[in-house]
Amino acid sequence: MAESETRTPWIIRTYAGFGDAEQSNRRYRENLAHGQRGLSVAFDLPTQNGYDADHQMAAGEIGGTGVSISHVGDMETLFKEIDLGTINTSMTINATAVWLYALYIAVADKRGVPRAKLRGTTQNDLLKEFVARGTSIFDPAVSLRLTTDLITFAAAETPLWNPMNSCGYHYMESGASPAEEVGYAIGNAILILEAIRPALAADAFAGVVDRISFFINSGIELVPEIAKVRAYSQLWTELCRERYGVAAKWRAGCQVRSLTLTEQQPEVNIIRIAYQALPVVISASARVGALQLPGFREALGLPDPSEQILALRTQQVLMYETGVTDYPDIFEGSKVIEKATREIKDEARTVIAEMEKIGYAGCIPWIALRLTSALVKWRQQIESKEKLVVGVNAFRGEVGAFSGAARVRAEDAVTPARVAQRIAEVEKWKETRDNDAVARALADLESAAVVGANLVPPSIRLAQAGGTTGEWTRALEEALGARYQPPLGSEIKDAPPLRLPRAPKRMRVLLAKSGLDGHVNAVKLLAFACREAGMEVVYTGLKQTPAMIVAAAIQEDVDLIGISSLSGSHLWIAREVQRGLRESGGGDIPIIMGGIIPEADQPLLRECGCRHVFTPKDGDVGAIVQAMIDTVLARAA
Amino acid sequence: MAESETRTPWIIRTYAGFGDAEQSNRRYRENLAHGQRGLSVAFDLPTQNGYDADHQMAAGEIGGTGVSISHVGDMETLFKEIDLGTINTSMTINATAVWLYALYIAVADKRGVPRAKLRGTTQNDLLKEFVARGTSIFDPAVSLRLTTDLITFAAAETPLWNPMNSCGYHYMESGASPAEEVGYAIGNAILILEAIRPALAADAFAGVVDRISFFINSGIELVPEIAKVRAYSQLWTELCRERYGVAAKWRAGCQVRSLTLTEQQPEVNIIRIAYQALPVVISASARVGALQLPGFREALGLPDPSEQILALRTQQVLMYETGVTDYPDIFEGSKVIEKATREIKDEARTVIAEMEKIGYAGCIPWIALRLTSALVKWRQQIESKEKLVVGVNAFRGEVGAFSGAARVRAEDAVTPARVAQRIAEVEKWKETRDNDAVARALADLESAAVVGANLVPPSIRLAQAGGTTGEWTRALEEALGARYQPPLGSEIKDAPPLRLPRAPKRMRVLLAKSGLDGHVNAVKLLAFACREAGMEVVYTGLKQTPAMIVAAAIQEDVDLIGISSLSGSHLWIAREVQRGLRESGGGDIPIIMGGIIPEADQPLLRECGCRHVFTPKDGDVGAIVQAMIDTVLARAA
Repeated sequence: MAESETRTPWIIRTYAGFGDAEQSNRRYRENLAHGQRGLSVAFDLPTQNGYDADHQMAAGEIGGTGVSISHVGDMETLFKEIDLGTINTSMTINATAVWLYALYIAVADKRGVPRAKLRGTTQNDLLKEFVARGTSIFDPAVSLRLTTDLITFAAAETPLWNPMNSCGYHYMESGASPAEEVGYAIGNAILILEAIRPALAADAFAGVVDRISFFINSGIELVPEIAKVRAYSQLWTELCRERYGVAAKWRAGCQVRSLTLTEQQPEVNIIRIAYQALPVVISASARVGALQLPGFREALGLPDPSEQILALRTQQVLMYETGVTDYPDIFEGSKVIEKATREIKDEARTVIAEMEKIGYAGCIPWIALRLTSALVKWRQQIESKEKLVVGVNAFRGEVGAFSGAARVRAEDAVTPARVAQRIAEVEKWKETRDNDAVARALADLESAAVVGANLVPPSIRLAQAGGTTGEWTRALEEALGARYQPPLGSEIKDAPPLRLPRAPKRMRVLLAKSGLDGHVNAVKLLAFACREAGMEVVYTGLKQTPAMIVAAAIQEDVDLIGISSLSGSHLWIAREVQRGLRESGGGDIPIIMGGIIPEADQPLLRECGCRHVFTPKDGDVGAIVQAMIDTVLARAA
Repeated sequence: MAESETRTPWIIRTYAGFGDAEQSNRRYRENLAHGQRGLSVAFDLPTQNGYDADHQMAAGEIGGTGVSISHVGDMETLFKEIDLGTINTSMTINATAVWLYALYIAVADKRGVPRAKLRGTTQNDLLKEFVARGTSIFDPAVSLRLTTDLITFAAAETPLWNPMNSCGYHYMESGASPAEEVGYAIGNAILILEAIRPALAADAFAGVVDRISFFINSGIELVPEIAKVRAYSQLWTELCRERYGVAAKWRAGCQVRSLTLTEQQPEVNIIRIAYQALPVVISASARVGALQLPGFREALGLPDPSEQILALRTQQVLMYETGVTDYPDIFEGSKVIEKATREIKDEARTVIAEMEKIGYAGCIPWIALRLTSALVKWRQQIESKEKLVVGVNAFRGEVGAFSGAARVRAEDAVTPARVAQRIAEVEKWKETRDNDAVARALADLESAAVVGANLVPPSIRLAQAGGTTGEWTRALEEALGARYQPPLGSEIKDAPPLRLPRAPKRMRVLLAKSGLDGHVNAVKLLAFACREAGMEVVYTGLKQTPAMIVAAAIQEDVDLIGISSLSGSHLWIAREVQRGLRESGGGDIPIIMGGIIPEADQPLLRECGCRHVFTPKDGDVGAIVQAMIDTVLARAA
């Protein structure tokens, strides 16, 4: 593997993880057998948010959008028969990044794999979680400390590891322009480096600078995307030289833009994904080091195995058949590309300067506001047909080249029995380990937190002792402060007008993100649209349990509840909310739901009292608002 | 339509045609409703070879790979409810190009559409038929005359029509390099212009030069393909200026490279086709005017409607979502692309100079020999894994995202009943028209042929009188000479070695192209391989009826018959050959077949006595030769 990696121009990955460690391990080994070159681990929302499977906040989300990992035994199973000395492992993990890294180190140590040989990435970027993705746990100051602790430890102990992947991805996914994506991502990296710099000697700091990596988006508009990747690479190396005197390598991974993929005519996504992969590998001077492509039916639910293989084949055609890596930089000297690149760099420098002025915590509301405005603008461009999207606002006939349903194999299913088994496993783990050793390790972690020591070494010791994700998180919460609840901010400035109906009477609606899913774009856009349409909007913010949603609805006396769920737990949520409303006398409050909801589940949701179910196919915000108004009026009549 | 055409950066087409005019017309109108912008007509092999459906040479081929068109009534039906004043129609027609153009003019005249408004293309390129595709009818001198007659007439009468599409496509399909493709295609255009030049005034000649167009290939290797399109465009405009002082526009249509599409993992072809479409539209300074993309299961049989829609969607994503046409030329100034372009132009100029030295007829054997060598080299690069092809010599696991079988709709099927009806229609047409008028028009055509007048006007009069494809062809044959049979030439110089077995004893095999299908690459490659393996090879050449194949096999006392068929008539051929062998005492001679043969037909072929059936999936020539040897030895034992 090590040898073949040096021969391949980038690492081919598939973002994957579901169910328990054993299920995910099986899929990883299949993908590796199909020629994949690296792993990209998706963790479930409880793991991302610091809960074990046996915690009540984990209910409905276990193994749903990624794999459930609590302890070192899980991590061993996840990498069963995979050589940690040669595999390149990317972990999309942020608030609990220190912990998952610690578990990985613990497994490597146990197997006798030298830390210096470990290759991979921890995403470890909280800024984009605060503003766009929603899985932050700790407040900005604690988050920044965890991020920098991991970076400085990893740079010293695991020199081939990328300890932070500054994520432009989610900004663009939330509507940011190419220049904004570059600016926010590099600005974040600079703020973090500035936080690290005072504590390190020049040599050690140079080593840290050189290990910073980026996770970027690649959209369908080829010229801006080609220029964006070049701007990323050039601006980063320029800034590292100018500010730190370091000749840093630009390191980046990429996932293509999910926002462009459509539920309509899903076959067309195969084509979009192929085009979107091109800009990040076409420039010899600005090529990503790793690329992962989504399944073409992502907007319909989790990918079936054939979709993952087709994503892999896309990369193999690109790498081995198109010859895209056989030539020196084909845009060197190109007037158009060089001009576009310059413009992106200039605008990104302005963004970075602003971020430095307002600081890490100040960036959170500033970027969040700009993103929501950008998303409204993007929506408006589609409504006005300024942007054409095949199957959405143009060329609507279905293709019909294959049956619409993804075929999840029985062994891949996350069944209630599997979930119960997972919970039982975690409980059993906690019973059978050396609980005194765990208690000592937790105490060490807490004192390290209090005295300001680096948190990675005690985290590794806790991992070795058998501690869990939930315990690690709770210890830090207790030592350092409460969980962070992001501001509700759905105000939008300078947004272009959407085509919206007008509420004919006073009406009050509750909008909630249920469970641990933090994808807030859609619900923020809807909150904006409802207010523009004249409704009163109660927006609950993130991480609402069904009980919390019910309580807020009763207390605020709302006319309608809108719940957004993108993590697959929609059925469980709808049932629990319906039960809660009935028990508290609000049984007649209508519910609507939106999110990644397979067609097969929609009748079941209706049985749970959902009046409407909206999916990515329902791109017309005005129609959704109209349906909400009609639902409220029908109830009043 | 005219307005929208001027707004779209290129014309989106699908190459389509099958069955009779009514069936094809229905598919055209469907495709236009899905947003297609132009038509690209595929004619069946009898029509391409100058036979009506009621001729014995047409048996087994009627409506198979294109639409059967005999007379003006068919042409009217083909364009029913399609406005000839606004549609852009490309006709892939060569030996009978004058005749199909005449039918089109006759319909336009009848509908009152001014000839000056007609837009479209007649392929009208016989050089590539002689060397690579095999549907030539007349000898090179007569072919050149028909080509030039159509060009001069069309340039004067239908000034928006492209009367010749010099085809680089088939050269690359037969293994030519980008520079060879450019050289042969532009060389052909130059030879034809030089033949026209003496007869025309400078102004008229300039008009002709400006209407010459090209039909190009686009392969999967992006950088050479991008450079190739730029080289085509630059070299053509340079040559027109240098030689003729004409500021000609480079006009081109494109179909992507079928040779790269695989029967294995057909879903992967969706990705290949998307990448292959890019090089011909990405350069603002060298963009094709029309593009047609194949169905992704082309290697398995004729496309079902959903495959055509997906091909269309690929172009729509490229045109409307990627923004590829929103920028000035992105390679202007690019060092790598400009260097690659220069190299292709220089090499192509050398090819053109050689073609001018040896003349039109001399080019035929010269190019044919070079192509077969190139094809062997291409094959050898795949065998040696110098070129990786996903699913063929690498990453072999199936994808499984689609069911394998194309779904041909009942109304699209070319059934025996439909064929019988088609034959009856042609016979009835001949009975009910004014046969005296037809006889007069045929006599006029023959005398024009003899006196050397332009053949287009009498062809139009014959079309108007009700003459047929077969009658037009026969009249010219009688007036000007016999049908042309291309040389058998399967000798190859300087070919790299293939991995081949050695025949253990003397054995003699017959290799034949059956029916009217002229795709000779595979059979020529096999003939070469069999000779290298030590067999005696009797190669029959093109256009063999089953009776001719049987007669040759008996006369030459062969040990095995190999038949190549890419036009879909394989079942009919196998049955007829088996019957013929039995009747003439050769019932025990084993038969093998190769070509585009759906899996469902393979057991049926085995029932007709075929010992082996090879499809594009069987890429290992050595294995085919081994199977032939084993079959001969088994019979001897």
